[in-house]
Formats: sequence, structure tokens, C-alpha cells
Amino acid sequence: MRVALLGGTGNLGKGLALRLAILGHEIVVGSRKEEKAKSKAEEYRKIAGEARITGMRNEEAAKSCEVAILTIPWEHAIKMAKELKHILRDKIVVSPLVPVSKGDGGFTYDSSKSAAEMVAEVLESEKVVSAFHTVPAARFANLDEKFDWDVPVCSDDDASKKVVIKLISEIEGLRPLDAGPLSNSRLVESLTPLILNIMHFNSMGELGVKFL
Amino acid sequence: MRVALLGGTGNLGKGLALRLAILGHEIVVGSRKEEKAKSKAEEYRKIAGEARITGMRNEEAAKSCEVAILTIPWEHAIKMAKELKHILRDKIVVSPLVPVSKGDGGFTYDSSKSAAEMVAEVLESEKVVSAFHTVPAARFANLDEKFDWDVPVCSDDDASKKVVIKLISEIEGLRPLDAGPLSNSRLVESLTPLILNIMHFNSMGELGVKFL
Repeated sequence: MRVALLGGTGNLGKGLALRLAILGHEIVVGSRKEEKAKSKAEEYRKIAGEARITGMRNEEAAKSCEVAILTIPWEHAIKMAKELKHILRDKIVVSPLVPVSKGDGGFTYDSSKSAAEMVAEVLESEKVVSAFHTVPAARFANLDEKFDWDVPVCSDDDASKKVVIKLISEIEGLRPLDAGPLSNSRLVESLTPLILNIMHFNSMGELGVKFL
Repeated sequence: MRVALLGGTGNLGKGLALRLAILGHEIVVGSRKEEKAKSKAEEYRKIAGEARITGMRNEEAAKSCEVAILTIPWEHAIKMAKELKHILRDKIVVSPLVPVSKGDGGFTYDSSKSAAEMVAEVLESEKVVSAFHTVPAARFANLDEKFDWDVPVCSDDDASKKVVIKLISEIEGLRPLDAGPLSNSRLVESLTPLILNIMHFNSMGELGVKFL
């Protein structure tokens, strides 16, 4: 499957690029700047070996893919969704986005509506799938890291949800869990500030989540 | 330590009564009706052996304890907090309460303010501690059940939080995790509808949570 990582130059993009490419998927790393996308793709190729990883501007990356994962910071996501709406509205779009900020008492969830629902509104698309919020990005990007994490997944489109659930289930150590329609994404996204608080108040490193 | 389980006749109350009593704590099971409290206490004593478990009306139970755990359904909690305010405002009060309801798309979190903060407002107390929201009650009440679950804990009063964290850490298979001040309780309480959705959409039984 051809997967684009839009803004895929951070740790979540790196982890997804490496781990999906190793499985045989064709990865397109997207960035606002073509040069940065190409150099990151080269860096990832060196780690992943023979894997098919290329770099392109976000727009070209979006055009070329079947599944686009929005691996960019939340504050840039809505602007990008608006700019690429004409391309992304027909694709499966995965939102790992979380509107989180830090206040006096710790991290808080900042929005009355989920990031995934806001993206779906902008794109006027049902094919938005919410996933990967709680995957610890730096650990995930390190191929030596072993883990056993759950990935709650929300979407209003069953076919798109199935594709993403299958993709997640292929990655060793990740278990996708259906968390219902996109309106439930707020509950999933709220896990991220909770985990950041637990890391902060207990002086712990990056943490994922497991339901058991 | 003398622990009251106010409305302790359900599964969370039963699990806490059994598991804390076995550790040597003195347990008071509270109910609106004295007769029901006494019969539940007798039932729990039979399971827990030599343990000190007694039954009383909620008011008497609250008076007699050092720590009161509100093991009643959310819809009755605020009314009880108001009725017992004169007693509970000086005690450590633990809120496992979650304002949850079921809509078309699954379970939702119902409130802009956390249950724990609402209880603290009613009691005009800083000694409210939020905990136990994600402990699967029926499994917890079964002493044959083995588990490895995390329990996020919030409070504005460090001394009260420490007491509750120590209590949780004594129970085998539970790991308390400091999740910050009471204003973070909403993020913890939101875990419950998320877990209920995951159980529902994946046809799974009761689940707890672990951060790893």
C-alpha cells in the first residue's frame, strides 16, 4: 500500500516510515520543502535497507498515496488540510492529531471538538480515521525498541477504518482496537495529555497504553 | 486504616472491601439502609475470613472513617455529598465517580467539569482524591482474578494524595500513578467511557489500563 506521511519529518513520521517500509509498503515522506523531504527519505532508507521510501512536497505526496497520515504538529494541521482539501478529500486520511497544551497544573486537552472531527469537517470527508495518538514517537522511531501497545481507532467510514486497522495490525507490537465512530475520537485524543501528565508527575519516560 | 465505602454494596465496593480488609485495614461498608450494609458486610466477611468488615448507614460509616471512598453510582453522588457535607469535609474523600452516558455512537463523557471537582466544590474541601475510575469492578471483586493495572490519582492536597497512593500500592496488581492536581481528573475520568467503547466495539470483557 502507498502511504504518505504528510509532515513526516518528526519522530512519528520516522517510526511509521521505517516500520511500514520494512513490511513492504511504499512510503512517501512529505514536507513543505522538497529538499527536506528528500533528505529525510534518504536518512530513513539508510536505516530501513532496501525499502521503498521517497521524499516529496506534501502536495505531491498526498496526490501519490492511497492513505495519508497527518504526522504534523496540530497547530499546522488545519491549514494544511485546507490547502490540500481538493486532493485529500478522496483519500483515507489518518489523524494522530491532539489539541494539547500545557497549563499550570499540567497538560490539558484544549478543544470541545476532536481534532479528527475538525479535519473531517474541513475536508468534507467521511474517510478520516483517528489513530496513533498514544504511540510514543521517539521509542517508536527506534527500531531496537520492543513494545506492546494498543492503538484505539475511530472512524465513521467502516471501509477506511478496516484499511487502517489492517495496517496497524501488521506492525509488530501494536494492537489496533476499534473505538467506534469519529465522535468518540475526543476520548482517544484525551489520552495524550493524560499520559504526558503521568510522565511528568512520576518522572517517567515516554509511555504507551495497553488495555488488559 | 479505617476506610468507609459509601454505597459499598456494588462490585467496586466489594473488591475494595475484600482486598483492603485482607491487608489488615478496618472496613466499614456504608449503605442508605443499615440492614443492607450489615448483610453485605457479613457476605464480605465470609469471603475475606478473619477480616474486620462492618456494615452501617452511610452517615455512621462516614463518621467512623479516616478515608471515605464514594463507591456509589454517579447519579446519586452529589446528593450524598450534600447530605454528608458536615462529616465528609474533614475526611479524605476518594472519588471513583465518572459522569458517563450512552449515546448513538457509544459511551460519552458527559460533563465539562470532572466529577471529582464537583464533589470538592460541594464539600468545600481540598482533601478530595480522584482514583479507581478504570478498575474493572467485577474482576476486581473476584479474589481469584490476577491483574496488573495502573490507577491514575489526582488531588490538590499532597498529604491526602500520599495516603491514597500508599493504600493503592498495598493492593497486589495495582500501581498508583500521580496524575497531578484535581483539575486533571477530567482526563482520568474520560478513560472510563473510552474503555467501555473499546469493550463494546471489540466484543471484549472488562478491561483495565496499563501505561508502559
